[in-house]
Amino acid sequence: MSYELLVEVTRNGTVESRHFGSAVVCDARGNVVESWGDIESLVFPRSALKPMLAIQLVESGASAHYALNDAELSLACSSHQGEQMHQDLVASWLNRLGLTEEHLACGPVLPEDTESAHKLLASGQQGCRIHHNCSGKHAGFLTTALHLDLSLDDYHHIEHSLQQLSLDTLSDLADIDLKQYPIGIDGCGLPAPTMPLLQLGHATARFASPVDLSDSRAQAIYRLHEAITNEPLYIAGHGSVVSELNEVTKGAVLAKTGAEGVATAALPGRGLGIALKITDGSSRARSVALLAILDHLGALSDEEKHQLQAHISPVILNSTGIVVGEIRPAASWLPRFNGIALNENRRKVKA
Amino acid sequence: MSYELLVEVTRNGTVESRHFGSAVVCDARGNVVESWGDIESLVFPRSALKPMLAIQLVESGASAHYALNDAELSLACSSHQGEQMHQDLVASWLNRLGLTEEHLACGPVLPEDTESAHKLLASGQQGCRIHHNCSGKHAGFLTTALHLDLSLDDYHHIEHSLQQLSLDTLSDLADIDLKQYPIGIDGCGLPAPTMPLLQLGHATARFASPVDLSDSRAQAIYRLHEAITNEPLYIAGHGSVVSELNEVTKGAVLAKTGAEGVATAALPGRGLGIALKITDGSSRARSVALLAILDHLGALSDEEKHQLQAHISPVILNSTGIVVGEIRPAASWLPRFNGIALNENRRKVKA
Repeated sequence: MSYELLVEVTRNGTVESRHFGSAVVCDARGNVVESWGDIESLVFPRSALKPMLAIQLVESGASAHYALNDAELSLACSSHQGEQMHQDLVASWLNRLGLTEEHLACGPVLPEDTESAHKLLASGQQGCRIHHNCSGKHAGFLTTALHLDLSLDDYHHIEHSLQQLSLDTLSDLADIDLKQYPIGIDGCGLPAPTMPLLQLGHATARFASPVDLSDSRAQAIYRLHEAITNEPLYIAGHGSVVSELNEVTKGAVLAKTGAEGVATAALPGRGLGIALKITDGSSRARSVALLAILDHLGALSDEEKHQLQAHISPVILNSTGIVVGEIRPAASWLPRFNGIALNENRRKVKA
Repeated sequence: MSYELLVEVTRNGTVESRHFGSAVVCDARGNVVESWGDIESLVFPRSALKPMLAIQLVESGASAHYALNDAELSLACSSHQGEQMHQDLVASWLNRLGLTEEHLACGPVLPEDTESAHKLLASGQQGCRIHHNCSGKHAGFLTTALHLDLSLDDYHHIEHSLQQLSLDTLSDLADIDLKQYPIGIDGCGLPAPTMPLLQLGHATARFASPVDLSDSRAQAIYRLHEAITNEPLYIAGHGSVVSELNEVTKGAVLAKTGAEGVATAALPGRGLGIALKITDGSSRARSVALLAILDHLGALSDEEKHQLQAHISPVILNSTGIVVGEIRPAASWLPRFNGIALNENRRKVKA
């Protein structure tokens, strides 16, 4: 296995930490357009699969039956930050289904958004299942289970037909039989399949351009494109690289992150899919690497890069508010990196 | 630069993430006893330097003049977790000096200990300077500055004679002139020197066995050994690998961590120093790697390993409380790894 040095973390100009990883750009036929590092080894795509897992919510007719709106479909694809807007929409969605928080199989956690978490604690409350970044995905599974008249209390188990259907859909996109590969359990209790990074890139490209899939599956994917593009804040949240990429590019780049350093981006207009894994699982490095690849592919205009510069190379602030370093793409892997001049709008990370 | 695969993070038995790094074991003369990966490249030792930075607090006579007790000296060497016991001792120490929190140059933060942070937020309070993991180190610097009649308002600047003295002391231990190497700014505002990992190992070995240093410096170091050994909870906190290693081994292993994946251990009885850097800066990997090296060196009895098993290979719990994976030393770099049978006392990490 070989890994590429993708991202460096500096302190006063000297490199302090290094993030290695692998990345691949595929087209919808599964051809490798470009790659860095080992793309044959297995990765757990984790939440990067969520938009693909939402396909059956639409394809089954559940979404239409329950009249899910764009925000709810975007939330079904989300790793949301647990902001008030996300909490409210999960709660109202469950309520419309006649269900409660107790039906969600994910565990109780504090919102990932620090401000929301602190506000909650200051008001004497604790984390709950709705705050879990996966609660929208779980609401989606419950919606499909209700529509297909499947049991609700074990919908997260791999033996449940909903999860078997999910593995079939993912296998269709990745063009391999995922049931032949190791499967773990995700942070929210659902099955966590594995696949080579190459197949994740291929699946992401087919999500971008589902021309080789069945018509019903392709239509479901186009519906999800529309929902995510119309409601980008529901797939992640304010200030997140995923929501801002989707919003700034008006759906030309549909990004998604996964735990342990995974990021993907579907480029519908170009029929490309990007998949990357930061070897060490770091989240601070994955967005920097993803933006570097998008820039390398010419997928972002200068105006878009200016709007996204918060994520291109964040600066590190210390506890006294002084800039002490930065997180940047390594110069070694993308010789054609076409950085813009960064200004005071760079994202500030406390460390 | 080459790095060794030190630690793996698994999910249902399949490796999900990998942490590379470098490590060295030195004796007090600077001989390399054993090493893994590149040990010549520069690292920022960060808080791993704190016990060495506390030397001048003792050597200057400040500690004796202000009658610092073992707990205060241990706290001067600490990255404390901000538990109530740490907050109280920093506050009473400053009060005895006639100073207040406002004299600390570090910025306001929440305690690193989650329970303490949540308790604080639930009571309507915010983070403050005393909660900073470095506030004990800063109290130590203020004590020395008072004793030497140096200015208090800029003690954290590299130009201040206290910081110049610190660099001299560190250079003495590391056996290189740190002023010739890059220096950044730390999270708490103090200078953050760099050195090759090899020199950090050497400095740690000389801290373990200061036989080649001046008598006054050696006596100061022995005083710090005693203080840390007598008050292990003040150098980090409950449940931490540093406090538990120091406590369980009764001072035979004096460990210290540094931000961005650094860990050191001084073994006074064997005159050895260990220094390691997780390349990506991960904190979850550094303690697992350190324990593996200590075991490899035969520095821990089976009884001690049983007591420390929480840190040898933590298990990962998901939000529903199920064990979904583990963090373990890679099998490739320590063929003689002599693991004990782990039981239900393994540390549980939420992820």
